[in-house]
Amino acid sequence: MTVHNKTRHCQIVDCTIRDGGLVNNWDFSVEFVQDLYEALNEAGVEYMEVGYKNSPKLLKGSEDAGPWRFLNDDFLRKVIPEKKKTKLSALVDVGRVDPDDILPRSESMLDLIRVACYARDTEKAIELATMFHERGYETTINIMALSNVMDNELTESLALISDSPIDVVYIVDSYGSLDPDDFRYLVEKFRRSLKHKRLGVHTHNNMQLALANTLTAAEMGVELLDASVYGMGRAAGNCHTELLLAKLAKAEYNLRPLLGMIEKHMVTLREKEEWGYLIPYMVTGVLDEHPRSAMAWRASSEKDEYLKFYDKMTTPEVFPKG
Amino acid sequence: MTVHNKTRHCQIVDCTIRDGGLVNNWDFSVEFVQDLYEALNEAGVEYMEVGYKNSPKLLKGSEDAGPWRFLNDDFLRKVIPEKKKTKLSALVDVGRVDPDDILPRSESMLDLIRVACYARDTEKAIELATMFHERGYETTINIMALSNVMDNELTESLALISDSPIDVVYIVDSYGSLDPDDFRYLVEKFRRSLKHKRLGVHTHNNMQLALANTLTAAEMGVELLDASVYGMGRAAGNCHTELLLAKLAKAEYNLRPLLGMIEKHMVTLREKEEWGYLIPYMVTGVLDEHPRSAMAWRASSEKDEYLKFYDKMTTPEVFPKG
Repeated sequence: MTVHNKTRHCQIVDCTIRDGGLVNNWDFSVEFVQDLYEALNEAGVEYMEVGYKNSPKLLKGSEDAGPWRFLNDDFLRKVIPEKKKTKLSALVDVGRVDPDDILPRSESMLDLIRVACYARDTEKAIELATMFHERGYETTINIMALSNVMDNELTESLALISDSPIDVVYIVDSYGSLDPDDFRYLVEKFRRSLKHKRLGVHTHNNMQLALANTLTAAEMGVELLDASVYGMGRAAGNCHTELLLAKLAKAEYNLRPLLGMIEKHMVTLREKEEWGYLIPYMVTGVLDEHPRSAMAWRASSEKDEYLKFYDKMTTPEVFPKG
Repeated sequence: MTVHNKTRHCQIVDCTIRDGGLVNNWDFSVEFVQDLYEALNEAGVEYMEVGYKNSPKLLKGSEDAGPWRFLNDDFLRKVIPEKKKTKLSALVDVGRVDPDDILPRSESMLDLIRVACYARDTEKAIELATMFHERGYETTINIMALSNVMDNELTESLALISDSPIDVVYIVDSYGSLDPDDFRYLVEKFRRSLKHKRLGVHTHNNMQLALANTLTAAEMGVELLDASVYGMGRAAGNCHTELLLAKLAKAEYNLRPLLGMIEKHMVTLREKEEWGYLIPYMVTGVLDEHPRSAMAWRASSEKDEYLKFYDKMTTPEVFPKG
């Protein structure tokens, strides 16, 4: 059945290019990105995160990445000459962005700039996001890896953000290890600590709970919901945009253009690139670990030796935790 | 995180052979079934549904099906000469089973016989299941396609079952169209109408909600939870046994043998046979339709033409509903 009145406040942030770029080193053609923008706009999706706005100067060894890794405003203007209803977003990482690269919003194609950080970097994230806020952007702070943060540290982080001008604060399940009960706990905690902020969620699908977690948050009043078409994102991928849009069932939404995008681009792309439900990613989700060990395993000649991977992951001296 | 005290009452019924057989016409080797039995037993899974116990006399045109389509007690005794902790189950359909084929439990390998029916056939299902109950079996009645049953009809069905000796009553999401809110509604309704029965759930994964739906039911006290290894089941498949077992995290459970089964058998099988998240199955789930039209589409030369399928499904004169 569909969710109705309870989720009318929700907006979708499609992360296919940004998080999916972690899969294919941002090797998306201009045609792909243009088709995706058209599809999202026709589907009624509110935001498209078109890449990272980090600085190549601060991320050595990334010179071979596609143009969505280090977004350039002039290039973006050529790709999307006419912006329609769907707004554009970019993500930056604390320590990897040069504030001088960020134009005032009036001169930029971007509407929303999101700052990803670990809880320990909250002050730096607030400083950056405040700067972008003052340049006219909508802003979010996305706190990553919440399953590995002590509650007292998180409480302090949220208190700092509460007093800042940031618009939206995100709950990020970086390891895909959380379930709907965990999201209920976190949304309640964020709500208590951030009385005047809007909230967002970013989920991963290691245990096939990304949609259920996102819907749980949506029904609790969380407004910004991240997703990717066909789930494309690092490792197990994200909540699927087509599923989320179908379940939210807002009158403005239209599933058909997303099915067209999947038919034209995503099926062949999935044959070439790997994301989604694979046992090593399921194992890191179950164990509440960063997926990097599983990604390395899938890139090795032992990629389908699941018992060996599981044994290594559950033997602390082989892959030390943390 | 893991679910603990709230779900200690739960037991898993693995349906890989029975529901997975709908994918490959029950073409599982004896070695496959033996390896699965060993893996489930070592993992601590309580039940293995090893096939259907329908009668070939009543199902013409199924002569080429594998032996798990029409279970034979002598054959089963050769396959599993030594039964361990995991109990054995078989499913029968109203109108397709010959009661003369069902031995007394004392002479059979089977412990549990489940009767699948539509709500309109409840009386016939009770008659059959009562007969099996009297022959010593644990019994369930599995009411299918609940998303297409009027509430008053369901209320009558449950009242009939309430007065029968059947042990367990199942909520079956045949179309994979239900979400956790729907399961909360149905579990509450079944609980009110069936004060002295245990409950079970059988889910499908069309919208990637099978695990979330199953966990929702488990936390509400539902005891028998159906699942399949690697999700193998008709169309979009079922809740994954490995995920469910990991999330329930009972002290008796052990994930490792299931990963071994997936490594040895399921990955190559998935390359040969098709089930899981595919857009036509997602579409029938979203539209609350039986997956048969999507299965036919996936068997056609147009299998990846999603827009055409969606347009046909949403144009009533092409595929009439019901």
